[in-house]
Amino acid sequence: MANEIPYKIYLEENEMPKSWYNLRADMKTKPAPLLNPGTREPMTAEELEGVFCKELVKQELDNDTREIEIPADIRSFYKMYRPSPLVRAYCLEKKLGTPAKIYYKFEGNNTSGSHKLNSAIAQAYYAKQQGLKGVTTETGAGQWGTALSMACAYFELDCKVYMVKVSYEQKPFRREVMRTYGASVTPSPSEETEIGRKILKAHPGTTGSLGCAISEAVEKAVSTEGYRYVLGSVLNQVLLHQSVIGQECKIAMDKYGIKPDVIIGCAGGGSNLGGLIAPFMGQKLRGEADYQIIAVEPASCPSLTRGTYAYDFCDTGMVTPLAKMYTLGSNYIPAPNHAGGLRYHGMSSILSELYDEGFMEAKSYRQTEVFEAAELFARSEGILPAPESSHAIKGALDEALKCKETGEEKTILFGLTGTGYFDLVAYEQFNNKTMEDYVPTDEEIAESVKTLP
Amino acid sequence: MANEIPYKIYLEENEMPKSWYNLRADMKTKPAPLLNPGTREPMTAEELEGVFCKELVKQELDNDTREIEIPADIRSFYKMYRPSPLVRAYCLEKKLGTPAKIYYKFEGNNTSGSHKLNSAIAQAYYAKQQGLKGVTTETGAGQWGTALSMACAYFELDCKVYMVKVSYEQKPFRREVMRTYGASVTPSPSEETEIGRKILKAHPGTTGSLGCAISEAVEKAVSTEGYRYVLGSVLNQVLLHQSVIGQECKIAMDKYGIKPDVIIGCAGGGSNLGGLIAPFMGQKLRGEADYQIIAVEPASCPSLTRGTYAYDFCDTGMVTPLAKMYTLGSNYIPAPNHAGGLRYHGMSSILSELYDEGFMEAKSYRQTEVFEAAELFARSEGILPAPESSHAIKGALDEALKCKETGEEKTILFGLTGTGYFDLVAYEQFNNKTMEDYVPTDEEIAESVKTLP
Repeated sequence: MANEIPYKIYLEENEMPKSWYNLRADMKTKPAPLLNPGTREPMTAEELEGVFCKELVKQELDNDTREIEIPADIRSFYKMYRPSPLVRAYCLEKKLGTPAKIYYKFEGNNTSGSHKLNSAIAQAYYAKQQGLKGVTTETGAGQWGTALSMACAYFELDCKVYMVKVSYEQKPFRREVMRTYGASVTPSPSEETEIGRKILKAHPGTTGSLGCAISEAVEKAVSTEGYRYVLGSVLNQVLLHQSVIGQECKIAMDKYGIKPDVIIGCAGGGSNLGGLIAPFMGQKLRGEADYQIIAVEPASCPSLTRGTYAYDFCDTGMVTPLAKMYTLGSNYIPAPNHAGGLRYHGMSSILSELYDEGFMEAKSYRQTEVFEAAELFARSEGILPAPESSHAIKGALDEALKCKETGEEKTILFGLTGTGYFDLVAYEQFNNKTMEDYVPTDEEIAESVKTLP
Repeated sequence: MANEIPYKIYLEENEMPKSWYNLRADMKTKPAPLLNPGTREPMTAEELEGVFCKELVKQELDNDTREIEIPADIRSFYKMYRPSPLVRAYCLEKKLGTPAKIYYKFEGNNTSGSHKLNSAIAQAYYAKQQGLKGVTTETGAGQWGTALSMACAYFELDCKVYMVKVSYEQKPFRREVMRTYGASVTPSPSEETEIGRKILKAHPGTTGSLGCAISEAVEKAVSTEGYRYVLGSVLNQVLLHQSVIGQECKIAMDKYGIKPDVIIGCAGGGSNLGGLIAPFMGQKLRGEADYQIIAVEPASCPSLTRGTYAYDFCDTGMVTPLAKMYTLGSNYIPAPNHAGGLRYHGMSSILSELYDEGFMEAKSYRQTEVFEAAELFARSEGILPAPESSHAIKGALDEALKCKETGEEKTILFGLTGTGYFDLVAYEQFNNKTMEDYVPTDEEIAESVKTLP
């Protein structure tokens, strides 16, 4: 009985991590620095502090400190929804008839519905510490905006969210969650900013884009006394905060003597994958252990599997610094019928470097096969997964079915980043069999990367 | 440190209850039996078995067995989403500045979003054991239907849900969750049943009602080989299954030496409240301990606080057996602007009897004050609560604020039955300040109870 693995492993509060783990400290080749797009020189702390909070800039640029303490206030907030459970997928294993042992780290048990809250609360905390009045950000469907609203409500910080207009109008539910948490939510493009007014004048009927919303949020932050801009993925600081996922995971697995053979995560900007794999990748980089690590991305937005490793803008509007990453070009926009999130054109610099050096693999799946995996998972394990997370599910199913063929008893760990409760329009398409796949041609991708600066 | 109460108390798997607790065994006056509306004689097992599963009928009629073993398959399913956390509301206490200690048992961490799954899985299990092909039920907004769909998917049982047409059309999200779990969802009234066709002929444009959906589901069950009807609240069997909530709660509290002074739950049909209070009420009935127990209901549907204790139909369509309960009359329908759930005209016979004997209190709140409490809770504790659960929150806030005045350090326990992720139209009304309160006049209630049989 002592060795029996429970369905869900929850750490005790005193077992929860007290520091974030900075993977960069163990990388021999550090991720390439952000560049000033004008001068092509590395961005200085001073330049970055006009946009981001001071302490977050410090974290962004720190490639050396291995452990960064999690402030007590953030740890208190974490205790409201963490530790997240590490789940043994007994029912899924049985359904598949696989000898593989499947585990998933479930980050969806909080109102934001995803792992985004882990970094939102950290960013809100440092804004509060700096004495700021508030923060600005952009959001598409609203996952990040929701997380940030919750974090700002906790610290009584003002939160201005620019929400892509088409989502603001057609997906009002997350908008209302944000408002309930006290955030002001503005459909973008808006009359509130110079860039917004400019775009509205040029394209009066536009329904907006994430690129435009980023530009408005950045402009608002730098032009308003006491405000800074915050971002929910891609950046080094975000991966640092998300390391709490992997650390909890590793502590729980060590406690029960479990060692994963394969670790799988979905990858959009890289925040969840980077967080999940952090301590395992650290061991791998230090030569202490080996793991097969797989990033799963949508076939409609295949930055790792079909992108170019180069410096590019982080946004479609080309107002941000340049980051070196696997990219499809900052103008690349996945087909509108792509419902499954993970629509970002690039990938975290940290993960891009590790992938380039062969420390991890990547694969892509089509939208409909991802939703088939989601349905099977929901019916077996009870949880209705987010479309994003379902990419990792599909990856795990494939590995588990391989084990069924070979008879191998591999241990598979994947990240279940969130729930699909606000993605039911996509599920409806899937249920009605009207969901379509889209895979860009080589020509389309070649055309798109022509915009590389 | 040993005595420090964590933010969340999770039981270990081996601490989870192995039996449901049947509160009726400890009641000196047993709840009044269901009556055949034609003969006014108690319904026999044979009569009930035409509609309900055999084992569930046995549970419905069993007023004596104190502990009823939870079958292993149900316990396995419970392990996928239980134990649910008992949460110490440290952040809410701080926000209120109260010396009270507030705890809540959170049942929303599963895809059905509420406690309903505790009974759905039990009812699906017994249907499967009986060799049935499937079950039928009705659903309004979809909480119960979702839970039942998940349970049926697990046992690969067919699930036919009659969903009130207006919800089917205007609230498509829970409908799609049900379909993803493989349920067939039919807008009610439908052409599939005699009663449906009759109603459609008489009222071609009707958008349906819960009463009509119940009638269709019952007709379908009794007229289809291999099907039975299942219900998500009110019945004795449902309260029995829901006792798992209170039992987990009591085990967790005993483990940390916590004794609640006040226990608060929201009350619609009574399934959550009955489950939460079960073991505590048992102690009270046996004279082993005393607790103040408060049922909270909406002012727009005040069955305990303003209803009549009498035999009444369980449904608006007057096709079910008669139950003795606090009721507003089976024709009573809360005002359409009432968004907050808990719309049932009556109350579980068990709770009605206990209330009548003075073992618990009841109070009612208006819709807008309930949403104010929900907003404060969401901003303090992170979780966006269901409108139903927010009635209990409001009750707990009032008790905690009383303690702030008197300086008493009472321990308050309330049931947080679920999340509000599918109730954002109501939150939007609240955020836009267009939400209205409705309280029926004495005359309206007097008129409505005239329909008592």
